[in-house]
Amino acid sequence: MQNKEIRLARRPTGMPTYDDFAFVETEVPEPREGEVLVRTLYISVDPYLRSRMRARRSYVPPFEVNEVISSGGIGEIVESRSPAFKPGDIVTGMLGWRLYNVTKAAGLTKVDPRIPVTAALGVLGMPGLTAYFGLLDIGQPKAGETVLVSGAAGAVGVAVCQIAKIKGCRVVGIAGGEEKNRYICDKLGVDAAIDYKAGDISVALREACPNGIDVYFDNVGGEVSDAALPLIRQGARIIICGQISIYNVDAPDIGLRPQPYLLVNRAMMKGFIITDYMARFADGVRELSQWFAEGKLKNVETIVEGFENTPKAFIGLFTGENLGKQIVKVAAK
Amino acid sequence: MQNKEIRLARRPTGMPTYDDFAFVETEVPEPREGEVLVRTLYISVDPYLRSRMRARRSYVPPFEVNEVISSGGIGEIVESRSPAFKPGDIVTGMLGWRLYNVTKAAGLTKVDPRIPVTAALGVLGMPGLTAYFGLLDIGQPKAGETVLVSGAAGAVGVAVCQIAKIKGCRVVGIAGGEEKNRYICDKLGVDAAIDYKAGDISVALREACPNGIDVYFDNVGGEVSDAALPLIRQGARIIICGQISIYNVDAPDIGLRPQPYLLVNRAMMKGFIITDYMARFADGVRELSQWFAEGKLKNVETIVEGFENTPKAFIGLFTGENLGKQIVKVAAK
Repeated sequence: MQNKEIRLARRPTGMPTYDDFAFVETEVPEPREGEVLVRTLYISVDPYLRSRMRARRSYVPPFEVNEVISSGGIGEIVESRSPAFKPGDIVTGMLGWRLYNVTKAAGLTKVDPRIPVTAALGVLGMPGLTAYFGLLDIGQPKAGETVLVSGAAGAVGVAVCQIAKIKGCRVVGIAGGEEKNRYICDKLGVDAAIDYKAGDISVALREACPNGIDVYFDNVGGEVSDAALPLIRQGARIIICGQISIYNVDAPDIGLRPQPYLLVNRAMMKGFIITDYMARFADGVRELSQWFAEGKLKNVETIVEGFENTPKAFIGLFTGENLGKQIVKVAAK
Repeated sequence: MQNKEIRLARRPTGMPTYDDFAFVETEVPEPREGEVLVRTLYISVDPYLRSRMRARRSYVPPFEVNEVISSGGIGEIVESRSPAFKPGDIVTGMLGWRLYNVTKAAGLTKVDPRIPVTAALGVLGMPGLTAYFGLLDIGQPKAGETVLVSGAAGAVGVAVCQIAKIKGCRVVGIAGGEEKNRYICDKLGVDAAIDYKAGDISVALREACPNGIDVYFDNVGGEVSDAALPLIRQGARIIICGQISIYNVDAPDIGLRPQPYLLVNRAMMKGFIITDYMARFADGVRELSQWFAEGKLKNVETIVEGFENTPKAFIGLFTGENLGKQIVKVAAK
């Protein structure tokens, strides 16, 4: 059976371009014992994949040139040589950017049939868990505290905003453009939204955070974070979840050093990777699903149609095309 | 009775100068009920006092212009209107920069007669406690890990180096000048010392930390810290104890943003103020005193003679005149 896959054609320099990706036709191999054949339904494109396109080791090993790219995905079992799955099952896990993947059954989990299937890549999947553990475990927000979220309209940001509201915090979101900021205010209930593309962000932040910042959930880094530092309060907690402002930059990241602010405010800044919390994923999914069922937590997503548009969807992450989780619809269920 | 005191004559701009201080003759007042009259024996000069000379509120309120400066000190009770002390007792606490202070008895504690009196301002006092809680509570060093210490020959640094060695760590100290670096190697047993004034600190750090850095105890900030960031390991802990490199600078502190390094290494950076640990001071002093009695922990100090040299001793902190704790001897016991 004919297959199609997307490989890393070369390592991007700066912003990724279409020429960094190569579409290759291959044959679908036969699954071996313990493996399954999965038809791809949805592909998740994520900013962290840009780091894996560098030669340098980050927290996950880099993609090799000519290697197929892989990320979270949702698929349908076509053929199973594992007792764990049967044809027709809908599964999620790391999948190659292919129309069909032959993969070990052990790396996949069934999608709960009671939830909308794409939520498993969004607020009930990795982005939701990232928001949940980063905000609650590292940020430890208390009711009434001010929580600032950068990248507030991104896949993780929309979940952070909503969870912080559930916890009774005053939530201030930073996003790019009027539409996104209107969305997080009107649909997610954040208390104030700041368009970093419009006007002086320091001024806007001071207005939006009259009592300072207790928790800063940072998806962006760079100048947005510089503007937040002078407003942090005693005992503030800063969660470094992403730094999308620099993923396409190869030079050292020069800006305001946070150390003096951390010192004077006995504040804490911590980076984390969601896989550190793997042992607690089931607990996280349970509570997120509960909030989702109660209507307190929305899944926010932007869907691009067509496997051939996967590179476009990925590149669009860095120009802010997506509202919420960006996914690619490859095939119908 | 005639008294002398040192007031803040004006707020320093950049490096403090003698003209920022004024010597004033006054009268010693009578102690009231609950107060004591204390003859100053030793004055502690500390880098953090520079922050208190700014108008801006830091973690302690600023000194007012024309206010007497105060810091840790050791004195002898001359007259007591408190049951807690009797004449001849040696006490420590916050004292004005005066020959004699009349102060509330409640703010003072007796110096353990079994220890050398100045150790109460050094390794068995605030600097020792700062090293103890910062390193052990925030840094959580494990045997075999690499602990990097900036300002390693300063009052806190010498204690950090020794405690990290007691805990079985590989200790790398950064200090200015050959003499200090020789001292921390030969007398404190650090495994490698780096003279930040000699050569490329990044190169020296890479050589001294072949396995990277697990714990960085930062007293200095600035370019020294920039050089450490690329070497931090997975799960590294960075303790922000001081930032002496910028205490005399009024411009924003621009340099390498640590956020990308914290993210990729799921590392943590935390500022702290020793008074946060006040409830546990007795525990800290007990263990530090035990190590001191066993000869595992030295008190390292530089003593300047004469009350009139207090400003000189203070200013010298910023040019690195001191090895270990800088104190001023005002009078003999």
